[in-house]
Amino acid sequence: MSQTIDFYFDFMSPFAYLARARLVEIAGKSDWKIDYRPIELKRAKLAAGNDGPSNQAIPAKLAYMVTDLKRWAENYGIPFNPITGQDSARMNIGTFFAIDRDQADAYVAEGFRLGYVEGSDLNDDSVLTALGNAMGWNVDEFMAFLDGEDAKDRYEVVNLESHARGVFGVPTMMIGDEMWWGNDRLDFLDRYLANA
Amino acid sequence: MSQTIDFYFDFMSPFAYLARARLVEIAGKSDWKIDYRPIELKRAKLAAGNDGPSNQAIPAKLAYMVTDLKRWAENYGIPFNPITGQDSARMNIGTFFAIDRDQADAYVAEGFRLGYVEGSDLNDDSVLTALGNAMGWNVDEFMAFLDGEDAKDRYEVVNLESHARGVFGVPTMMIGDEMWWGNDRLDFLDRYLANA
Repeated sequence: MSQTIDFYFDFMSPFAYLARARLVEIAGKSDWKIDYRPIELKRAKLAAGNDGPSNQAIPAKLAYMVTDLKRWAENYGIPFNPITGQDSARMNIGTFFAIDRDQADAYVAEGFRLGYVEGSDLNDDSVLTALGNAMGWNVDEFMAFLDGEDAKDRYEVVNLESHARGVFGVPTMMIGDEMWWGNDRLDFLDRYLANA
Repeated sequence: MSQTIDFYFDFMSPFAYLARARLVEIAGKSDWKIDYRPIELKRAKLAAGNDGPSNQAIPAKLAYMVTDLKRWAENYGIPFNPITGQDSARMNIGTFFAIDRDQADAYVAEGFRLGYVEGSDLNDDSVLTALGNAMGWNVDEFMAFLDGEDAKDRYEVVNLESHARGVFGVPTMMIGDEMWWGNDRLDFLDRYLANA
């Protein structure tokens, strides 16, 4: 029986982009399934009581983070470019449209590609249209879904569930009560799966 | 010629304890010297513009951090216990006493052992006395040094220097302008040294 890793992510997180690239490999080795759960990073931080400044507001940390992201991308052998803008809500919500069509993995891969390979604005209509087209969808239907109440409710449910489970950042990987936070903890997850 | 890795640390940081254990191995492989530079973590954060809550004030993050620290200690095959209290200023300052006697590595190792193996209070007179005794020092002289103006000035200089170099957390390893922040970036440093 295939087992499941819950993957809490936000398209605006470059570390979630990095993590997904490697998580797919790690999970694939032992036939684990990835359950994609989009959440709003900023809200997860606030819900956990973390009302401090974002990394963007700490110049020395931001400068280091740029270096660090480049090191990881080089280490993984994948491209990395910064996204334009930080509003990822609609792209996050679109994950549910993909889940309903059993295309979550391809959707998340393409969304991250548009963001961190192309350097796109995740909230731009043309970017979301390109994403829908790449998935082979009726784009009008997809765009309408992103603004619909049902989709927003599902996003709300996953956000609240993540807070209840103690998720305070992304990417976060969970298997039951076990949690790994950060792209830089995938080695630990890999080891866990090897012994599971 | 032996080259130098600047190691910014604070005895109150459990991740600095973990990092030192592995850094000694990494540096030893290729004859790099570790230059121990004690700083006040809280001040480095504030100097960088990070006035957010500490991990201790974010319950979900604190709970995860305890798990994470245990995973790292197990991974390194070393003990881990939490320290009592968070005031590390005097033990940090004592590093200069050790530097003057060319005993910095042994001092930092023993200070971390008292903290994270014994679970001691780093600011307790009896702990600092034990540390001085373990180093074979005249303990009265050592204890007087910790409260002296000269030692405090040296601590101030290293703190200010770390802010100027963009250090925003500990442990931070620097070689010239290259920076690695966190115990979890020692793999990157290891790779850098292998190619240096």
